[in-house]
Amino acid sequence: MTRYEQLADDIEAAVQRGVFGPGERILSVRRASQQHGVSIKTVLHAYALLESRGVIESRPQSGYFVKARGAAAGRNPGAGASAAGAPRPRRPSVPKPPAPASVDVSRLVLSTLRSIGAQDAVPLGSPYPDPALFPWQRINQYANAIARRHASWNLIDDLPPGNPELIRQIARRYAENGAGVDPDEIVVTVGATEAINLSLQAVAKPGDTVAVESPTYYAMLHAIERLGMRAIEVPTHPHTGIDLDALERVLARQSVAACMVMPNFQNPLGFRMPDPHKARLVSIAEAHDLPVIENDVYQELYFGETRPSTLKQFDTRGLVLHCASFSKSLSASYRIGWALPGRYRAQVEKLKFLNTLTTPSVPQVALADYLRHDGYDRHLRRVRRFYRQQARLMRAMVERFFPAGTRASEPQGGYVLWVELPPRVDSMRLYQAALAQGITIGPGYMFSMRNEYHHHIRLNYSYPWTAQTEAALRTLGELVAKMA
Amino acid sequence: MTRYEQLADDIEAAVQRGVFGPGERILSVRRASQQHGVSIKTVLHAYALLESRGVIESRPQSGYFVKARGAAAGRNPGAGASAAGAPRPRRPSVPKPPAPASVDVSRLVLSTLRSIGAQDAVPLGSPYPDPALFPWQRINQYANAIARRHASWNLIDDLPPGNPELIRQIARRYAENGAGVDPDEIVVTVGATEAINLSLQAVAKPGDTVAVESPTYYAMLHAIERLGMRAIEVPTHPHTGIDLDALERVLARQSVAACMVMPNFQNPLGFRMPDPHKARLVSIAEAHDLPVIENDVYQELYFGETRPSTLKQFDTRGLVLHCASFSKSLSASYRIGWALPGRYRAQVEKLKFLNTLTTPSVPQVALADYLRHDGYDRHLRRVRRFYRQQARLMRAMVERFFPAGTRASEPQGGYVLWVELPPRVDSMRLYQAALAQGITIGPGYMFSMRNEYHHHIRLNYSYPWTAQTEAALRTLGELVAKMA
Repeated sequence: MTRYEQLADDIEAAVQRGVFGPGERILSVRRASQQHGVSIKTVLHAYALLESRGVIESRPQSGYFVKARGAAAGRNPGAGASAAGAPRPRRPSVPKPPAPASVDVSRLVLSTLRSIGAQDAVPLGSPYPDPALFPWQRINQYANAIARRHASWNLIDDLPPGNPELIRQIARRYAENGAGVDPDEIVVTVGATEAINLSLQAVAKPGDTVAVESPTYYAMLHAIERLGMRAIEVPTHPHTGIDLDALERVLARQSVAACMVMPNFQNPLGFRMPDPHKARLVSIAEAHDLPVIENDVYQELYFGETRPSTLKQFDTRGLVLHCASFSKSLSASYRIGWALPGRYRAQVEKLKFLNTLTTPSVPQVALADYLRHDGYDRHLRRVRRFYRQQARLMRAMVERFFPAGTRASEPQGGYVLWVELPPRVDSMRLYQAALAQGITIGPGYMFSMRNEYHHHIRLNYSYPWTAQTEAALRTLGELVAKMA
Repeated sequence: MTRYEQLADDIEAAVQRGVFGPGERILSVRRASQQHGVSIKTVLHAYALLESRGVIESRPQSGYFVKARGAAAGRNPGAGASAAGAPRPRRPSVPKPPAPASVDVSRLVLSTLRSIGAQDAVPLGSPYPDPALFPWQRINQYANAIARRHASWNLIDDLPPGNPELIRQIARRYAENGAGVDPDEIVVTVGATEAINLSLQAVAKPGDTVAVESPTYYAMLHAIERLGMRAIEVPTHPHTGIDLDALERVLARQSVAACMVMPNFQNPLGFRMPDPHKARLVSIAEAHDLPVIENDVYQELYFGETRPSTLKQFDTRGLVLHCASFSKSLSASYRIGWALPGRYRAQVEKLKFLNTLTTPSVPQVALADYLRHDGYDRHLRRVRRFYRQQARLMRAMVERFFPAGTRASEPQGGYVLWVELPPRVDSMRLYQAALAQGITIGPGYMFSMRNEYHHHIRLNYSYPWTAQTEAALRTLGELVAKMA
């Protein structure tokens, strides 16, 4: 193969992969000659060849452009290549979920999320709230105003612990909710995911054992898995949270480096841990000098009159590492979370610096401005009311469409329902059968390393109720009945 | 103390910490009663007390507000509290750097960065480019257009590997630079920092040994430290990069899990590793089945005619994990980086998901739109020309103001100069003396775990040359002369 044929093949391959899309300009002859280290003549030959193949076209005074989609459709683009000029699909294809026997929780979660991203799926399996509920336009108006107000932005101003104004607004929000915190304790992170990861790394090391709820929010399991630690699952009551007697027995029996819990509107159970239980959990932690990572991302999504208390409020010795974010209440795609790491603050701040350096600036400042100037409370009141109604509706629909032997949780906040199906139903098979009909669910396998919830599913009720949702619930109920 | 006095004290403490700033509204009486779990009467008493103390004021029909700054200045706010109503300072105070005997590299780096953030410091110690060089306004215009075009944004669309359009634009940029990559290999990250961390975690485990350059960019050392691995420092030539014979001797002698290098415009040395060296490094890696993490964040900031090659281009077996970002060339505060992890792609993608879930969406799409529609090449040509001139100027000034025995690097790209001082000069003492005069430098201690560069400093030349810069260089030269 000559030099120019090789070059033409390389460019055609790039077009086929969608690197250069239909109608886009490719490199000028001079630039291509420089970049590929070949003569101008070689590039001209290669471009002529590509023109003759219908891959590109030259436009006088403008340069060379990839031909519009379909123009080269007549040509067979070689084995394994996609149609010439076709852009990459907007959404990734849905991977086949792993078989129940060998569940890798994080891969299962990622593949579930991808299936939700796939077109037309009814997103009952989503862990995220309906993004249409976020005040996206208003937050972005603040972002735009910030961008116009400043000629440039210096990363250094937002080094860990984070943008000072956002930190102040977060502290203010806690104060408004009757839970004063020290603003100097706050470390801003990329979502609560990073806050939880850093907190765990600050208090435990590879090989350590970490106590978690069962069922637990899988991000907790991921954090433990990723850092080479081991999870011990503690039974968790659907109304009162982690079984404190069971936890004490575990602590008496073995060395535990940390405990991770979600005391408010736990995902998936939806309970609100009663204050006496919270107080006792903190006492137990103090007695064992046990760090407790408190995942409180649903703190603002309560159905009652006031925000629930936090473990942090009961903590007098700095053992609670409180993690939260705006991702459930204000903006998921901005990825702003934070940690209040108690006595581990210095380690968490340093780990934040090492993990991602800083959190993006404009999102931090835009949320600070929104919190300061806009109607966060009004927005939340609306969302809480909506979720409360939706929770009732989803429970009613499960009762209506699912067979006897089905039991649903009674969420006190948040936007997910936990459903126990008749024991013979395998949620992984149900997941696959539902997916084939364009419906996603959260299979129970995701919430434990021990396959304890194979006949449980999690359903998201944050999306407005439509005929399609109702049809999806009906279909699910029929599938369950067949498997039961 | 009565209930209402306690409440008043709590609110006053929050005001003193800056949680509620001057002129800001505090909770309504009704809300405060709910949140603090006290009667309306108690809140009214507490607010009256705070008014009498001059901390808050009531405004008819509006509620209660923190009094404007200084209004309460006459009152002594109790031991340890800052002035009532004073907002938190915009920039953190400069912590004292650690003594040379006990250098903790990551703390030293963070405290250096903070001192740069402090007002009036001449930022010769900064690792970041002057943010005024970034097309901040234009990128933000794209961000704003995206926000207006969409009614909401679904996080799920940008799950790892990242936003599909940004991935396409990154691949296109490589293709334009004559280095075709497979877009399906790209994983978008929160800056190159995350890309490097994830890459290292994908190929090595705690306790493993990782070969690095000496001197090396400290983020490499941080990643190794954080993951509980050990660094082995390989001598690195100021013009040709890591000593390949020395590397081979290390590999013959002991087990090494990975090698981390910066072949183009290394921070701090500024060399461009010649192609034959790059090819040989990849051959060595192949012979030992050794993953190589290539940090290529300065790829676009070359002083020559064309972009330098990457190790990735020489790699046929997927052993190179190529990491890069837009943080040096387009926007630091957006925090967009990526990895091309070769055969380790699946692990890196999964780790990304576990570490921070997704990268913020608007920054991803705004950069994609900028790359697609705007003058990235024109911007880069201007920046490269400027840096080339600044490199010459900084070298000339070091030669002019510093004593005999000083030697400066000859950067082939990027924006930092590496300066070897007479051996008796301790760069940590120099750092402290310079900081006292409002000048920052990068002390050599940051670039090695072995204190090998105690008489070296790194200087940033990305900022426009001013009389202040020149005075700072003159002062530095005098300080060095005194210590030599």
